[in-house]
Amino acid sequence: MKISKYPPKEDLKLRWEKVQTFMKEAGADACIASTNVNIYYLTGKIFAGYVYLPSEGEPIEFVQRPNSLEGERIIPIRKPEDIPALLSGKGYQLPSVFLLEADQITYNEYLRLEKALAPGTASNATPVLRKARMTKTPWEIEQLRISGTRHAEAYKSIPSLFRSGMRDIEFQYEIEWVMRQNGSLGIFRTFGHQMEIFMGSLLAGKNAATPSSYDFALGGGGMSACLPIGASGDIIEKGQSIMIDMAGNFTAYMTDMTRVYSYGTLPDKAYRAHEASIQMHNRLLETAKPGTECAEIYNWSLEMAEEAGFAANFMGTVQQAKFTGHGVGLEINEPPVLMGRSKDTLQPGMTIAFEPKFVLPDIGAVGIENTFLITENGIEKITVFEENIMKLE
Amino acid sequence: MKISKYPPKEDLKLRWEKVQTFMKEAGADACIASTNVNIYYLTGKIFAGYVYLPSEGEPIEFVQRPNSLEGERIIPIRKPEDIPALLSGKGYQLPSVFLLEADQITYNEYLRLEKALAPGTASNATPVLRKARMTKTPWEIEQLRISGTRHAEAYKSIPSLFRSGMRDIEFQYEIEWVMRQNGSLGIFRTFGHQMEIFMGSLLAGKNAATPSSYDFALGGGGMSACLPIGASGDIIEKGQSIMIDMAGNFTAYMTDMTRVYSYGTLPDKAYRAHEASIQMHNRLLETAKPGTECAEIYNWSLEMAEEAGFAANFMGTVQQAKFTGHGVGLEINEPPVLMGRSKDTLQPGMTIAFEPKFVLPDIGAVGIENTFLITENGIEKITVFEENIMKLE
Repeated sequence: MKISKYPPKEDLKLRWEKVQTFMKEAGADACIASTNVNIYYLTGKIFAGYVYLPSEGEPIEFVQRPNSLEGERIIPIRKPEDIPALLSGKGYQLPSVFLLEADQITYNEYLRLEKALAPGTASNATPVLRKARMTKTPWEIEQLRISGTRHAEAYKSIPSLFRSGMRDIEFQYEIEWVMRQNGSLGIFRTFGHQMEIFMGSLLAGKNAATPSSYDFALGGGGMSACLPIGASGDIIEKGQSIMIDMAGNFTAYMTDMTRVYSYGTLPDKAYRAHEASIQMHNRLLETAKPGTECAEIYNWSLEMAEEAGFAANFMGTVQQAKFTGHGVGLEINEPPVLMGRSKDTLQPGMTIAFEPKFVLPDIGAVGIENTFLITENGIEKITVFEENIMKLE
Repeated sequence: MKISKYPPKEDLKLRWEKVQTFMKEAGADACIASTNVNIYYLTGKIFAGYVYLPSEGEPIEFVQRPNSLEGERIIPIRKPEDIPALLSGKGYQLPSVFLLEADQITYNEYLRLEKALAPGTASNATPVLRKARMTKTPWEIEQLRISGTRHAEAYKSIPSLFRSGMRDIEFQYEIEWVMRQNGSLGIFRTFGHQMEIFMGSLLAGKNAATPSSYDFALGGGGMSACLPIGASGDIIEKGQSIMIDMAGNFTAYMTDMTRVYSYGTLPDKAYRAHEASIQMHNRLLETAKPGTECAEIYNWSLEMAEEAGFAANFMGTVQQAKFTGHGVGLEINEPPVLMGRSKDTLQPGMTIAFEPKFVLPDIGAVGIENTFLITENGIEKITVFEENIMKLE
């Protein structure tokens, strides 16, 4: 029943070494992580406290909670001000330059840590950790493959959950239940405190065109002004498309996969736009490899949308997202971003979601999303499942 | 089907005036909010951008997304650096002292806003906004009452969802589904980036004693090392208690309510400990009123736990939480906190969750949690539902 185990130490070592390489490039002696996602990345577990990773050797875990954690490199701690004395007690020299998660922890948390570690100088850990996390280790890739397999397995049940006369939100409740039954952990981790969503999104009919408050590809009005995203409570009508984009959080590492269903038959243009998205996925599979520029992928997506005659519907209508894909992992929005101004190139071990989507007002959204792994020589799809529009009766 | 509407403007005005009062006490001319929760509090909606509330008058909404928002006081904006020019354009004088959410936005977000509004001086908006949000307006109280009613309604179905031989997590999946069917929005907002949970917690048997990485009252091992909280996947055995503590997020304003079920009959001490918790709730109902010290409530809870002979089981065993309650609202952990070192007193309009709980290793957790509203003269329970241990067969 347990979905994810602890990563082996060799795998954690690969991560530490990556962080240490980038840390040294940034001129730092140590990196201090205190957000759940980075603590999990560096230790394979979640605790309240601080991970102290020096530029050489293994990290020290300063743990506030739970009080049950024990180990040679685990040190109970009450407050960050105790870090220097505890480090000295372990024979460590205090860092001259240390990294703090400046794009993740609050202003006051940062100031408190900065003061605690003075007279050393603080710099930003976030780009260093995000860069390390951008390419995945073997264990991380295995976790993503498990998520991808379970994600596809769960989607198989979707047609059996639909009933005529259903509201979009009722359909979503059933899909959530199936996702959980298949082992979804439910939690949806995002980078940045402004990205809120519950398990994923289902967009049917005209609701698909509602522009988003969030930085997701598409929007939807949602059920409440306090969470304006996804299903809006409208009854699903014949001739509408239903786009399903649930998070594949079956392990700590999330896959992203979107599929489209139709209630009855759709107008012809919906199939044409959907086919354009599938063609983009095929082009990605045929051409992407280490060294491919992320901006290039975005640019030819835009060109293909235009050639297909759906430029005005691509990635939204009244508000169009300026990306067609993004890295995935512990968070749903990791680097690289497939966008025009990206300077990243694909590297082996990256896992990216590609989501060229179209919004057709009054019909709904069409197009698919898959998660891919960049390999040594090319690219591999890890969310393998029927890609055509699937008919619901 | 839509659960929450927009608050009326008179209700928003009450909020602005509260914030403005505390803002002036803090010597500030303006408050800038950019977190979802505070944007929602000040405007009744969620958008990406900034709310600028001057110390007199109405706020201005600087909106990045969605591009569909329109209104006299809504100004589209691309980046925070544009705020001063846009303010001047509206005839506003730039603030000498302005407040930023220093305990909520990241270090780099804070620095960027601080620089954009220089030469004004920045100070902390978080305590000001949290203090304003601590007492609720009439519309907010109405939303909490709706959540409380629906919360109780959803819990009624729980016994019908249980089947012998079930794993704790399977029971939880069914309860989540019922919560959603009853209109739960799913999203669980917490203050502080370290508090993670999915919809709520179900603790059965010995898993209840697993200490938490998080600052919730109780823990549980969870299903994955990446989310160590709640149900652990074990089969529910006869003679175990099942504590159910799901978030009452049926509106933007969450109620907190815990109830206990038993599979078969429990050892006698479980009923005695549970009764001690009910007695504490009765004492709270009889004695609490505006002016009551939060620390006093915590202190007599501890004394009553000791008198009942369960001091070692109160709020955990190997790790004991140092609070017995907390404010609730847009976030599940708002001020005041019912703890020994609190200096807060109860005030009319506060909504607090009281959760004196006991962990009995091998049996599970017992005790209840209710959400209360502090009225002009006393206190009122807004999560009204059977409080004794309910038997599952």
